[in-house]
Amino acid sequence: MAEPPSVVSFLSDYGTRDEFVGVCKAVMMRLAAGVVIVDVTHDVAPFDVRAGSLTLARAAQYLPPGVILAVIDPTVGTARRAIAVEVETGFLVGPDNGLLAPAVAMLGGASRAVSLTNTDYHIEAAGPTFAGRDIFAPAAATLATGVELFDLGDPIDVHGLMPSILPLTRPHGDGIGGEVLWIDRFGNAQLNVEPDELSQLGFSVGAAIEVKVRDQTRLARWVDTFADARPAELVALVDSYGLIALALNQASAAEALHLQANTPVNLSPPS
Amino acid sequence: MAEPPSVVSFLSDYGTRDEFVGVCKAVMMRLAAGVVIVDVTHDVAPFDVRAGSLTLARAAQYLPPGVILAVIDPTVGTARRAIAVEVETGFLVGPDNGLLAPAVAMLGGASRAVSLTNTDYHIEAAGPTFAGRDIFAPAAATLATGVELFDLGDPIDVHGLMPSILPLTRPHGDGIGGEVLWIDRFGNAQLNVEPDELSQLGFSVGAAIEVKVRDQTRLARWVDTFADARPAELVALVDSYGLIALALNQASAAEALHLQANTPVNLSPPS
Amino acid sequence: MAEPPSVVSFLSDYGTRDEFVGVCKAVMMRLAAGVVIVDVTHDVAPFDVRAGSLTLARAAQYLPPGVILAVIDPTVGTARRAIAVEVETGFLVGPDNGLLAPAVAMLGGASRAVSLTNTDYHIEAAGPTFAGRDIFAPAAATLATGVELFDLGDPIDVHGLMPSILPLTRPHGDGIGGEVLWIDRFGNAQLNVEPDELSQLGFSVGAAIEVKVRDQTRLARWVDTFADARPAELVALVDSYGLIALALNQASAAEALHLQANTPVNLSPPS
Repeated sequence: MAEPPSVVSFLSDYGTRDEFVGVCKAVMMRLAAGVVIVDVTHDVAPFDVRAGSLTLARAAQYLPPGVILAVIDPTVGTARRAIAVEVETGFLVGPDNGLLAPAVAMLGGASRAVSLTNTDYHIEAAGPTFAGRDIFAPAAATLATGVELFDLGDPIDVHGLMPSILPLTRPHGDGIGGEVLWIDRFGNAQLNVEPDELSQLGFSVGAAIEVKVRDQTRLARWVDTFADARPAELVALVDSYGLIALALNQASAAEALHLQANTPVNLSPPS
Repeated sequence: MAEPPSVVSFLSDYGTRDEFVGVCKAVMMRLAAGVVIVDVTHDVAPFDVRAGSLTLARAAQYLPPGVILAVIDPTVGTARRAIAVEVETGFLVGPDNGLLAPAVAMLGGASRAVSLTNTDYHIEAAGPTFAGRDIFAPAAATLATGVELFDLGDPIDVHGLMPSILPLTRPHGDGIGGEVLWIDRFGNAQLNVEPDELSQLGFSVGAAIEVKVRDQTRLARWVDTFADARPAELVALVDSYGLIALALNQASAAEALHLQANTPVNLSPPS
Repeated sequence: MAEPPSVVSFLSDYGTRDEFVGVCKAVMMRLAAGVVIVDVTHDVAPFDVRAGSLTLARAAQYLPPGVILAVIDPTVGTARRAIAVEVETGFLVGPDNGLLAPAVAMLGGASRAVSLTNTDYHIEAAGPTFAGRDIFAPAAATLATGVELFDLGDPIDVHGLMPSILPLTRPHGDGIGGEVLWIDRFGNAQLNVEPDELSQLGFSVGAAIEVKVRDQTRLARWVDTFADARPAELVALVDSYGLIALALNQASAAEALHLQANTPVNLSPPS
């Protein structure tokens, strides 16, 4: 079993304009004296489970051992389960809607899981709608204090957790059909394409790649780092997570190409 | 008297783009080694004392015992007092402009209060305008270290603190006239209407309620939870704070009805 | 030599929408158990080294002794050095692009510095582009644990660090030519003008000052504090950092005068 953790890493779509995040933290601090809380981000777009799951997966390997609390919960109040999942480095707590799945996989898979049905660990509230405050944060804090996982609710099958639907690439003409996973703050567009997939097409660093987005066609040069891009030159590079990203040097590739998450992007040899 | 607290919960309208929040925290950390600071929110609209006071009141019952530091201070530099107020769970520190009043009431009322006139506890600065950094944060940190309240300034009458003007509902035809207190990040619109007020009008869960906003009239169904709403169906529900809110399932009721804080909303039986 | 610090004050242009800040903090917490991290701000405009350097300089004197981690790094991947600089209160870590220079000066100047070339203290990553996570945060955490500065890389000449180019005022007609350094959240516009410079022109508090911005000319009254301004009256005042700012009472001077950082502003006696 994992060591009793005392760090909670926290991700949500709560934003920071309301008191939601502060209240969840306060709840955890009251239940787990001395707990340390790390904000992964709270600015995931409202209800965007896919974006949140990818953000969590990118962060997971760097987070301290302990508890990961993730709340993006568009179907709060339905039959979707509230769960806690044990992994080698600790626990993940959140709704069973696919949000946790990629991070669980990144952390080596689930060993045990429960549905958070034990109401002794819930906070009573005037209304039914704030599961972060009343169910998830208390569960995360409780696990952080070392309470046994199975005390929090009914054991569930780790193979029955909601999976995440991550897009696969597919062959497209003499190239590869992918899509945008993530636009970061600087406008870099991470694709679901691995460098090996480009290598197998015969590309190597320095090569020109034809990039097709909707009805636009542009050339990108495969470079090692942002700084290798000439002003306004579109480049492809291996980003800090090991995936291919489209980028401009000190400018936004997403703006220039009208890219957003999910936009299909085809890469092929120049025609 | 309250136990010496070591947690400061911090709310402001400083935003997070400038260094204001970070500097106030740094000031507190230097004055109170080991203090733990919880951000309630810093994204209250600039100068919006009413919104801040409501946010603080919603959060108050969940915050750890200790000090609450709240700074929204449009009349900084005038005769408005800088105050610290003792409640059962600790202290509230901020300007005497109504910002603290609803939270003080929520926490059981004030037992003692001071005007922060003792300049020994102020930080000297090049200019007179940053009271958060120079007066309020030092006072909060000082109280967190257990210094006696009356050391910080002149005792003042707890009954003489600036009250908050919260809007009451009123009868309106055969219904009730209320207004929007708060639009949350997800576009849910909390009203100043309690479920009891609807029950007294003969409504119960499942009933249709006529919602009048300016010259629009719409029907809302009273449901238990967001998930009970059909796509695009306007619903009323008891929110997580026990007040009636207007909501859409996974969409923004505020956008759909052009609601904002203060917008009058009348609820009545369908005509 | 400085005492081993255990606080890291952190500024960046990473924003809070992605996981960048959370991951850098997580990396530091894993390397330096018990480290306390203070966010100065992460919402500096992307790549805006000048704005970040000014923000850091304004905050520096208030930050706890320890490490300052600052990452705004438009030329990541080029020959620009990654550095750590020792000052009396601790260390500053960041790119050698002028970002740290004003804060170093504010803290009394650099005693020693290294280029962060010792890869034993870097984190290995799939790609070369996230220096914050892989080089800067590990260096900051390592220094926070008390490791000797010179272990982190090759000593470099403290006089060879990239300076910051801060704009000087110049005489302009019978007045002074300055520019906007900073627009804060409330729309106040801090200028690079010191009150002494106005006094030398014969101005004193209460005087009318002619403000020229592009082809607009307006009068501002020199007042002591925001609250002295009449509704819609443009005022000049000494701000909380000791510089002259243009302000409106509870409104945005920046919006009213179309000011932004770098906008030239001339101050002179009324014509």
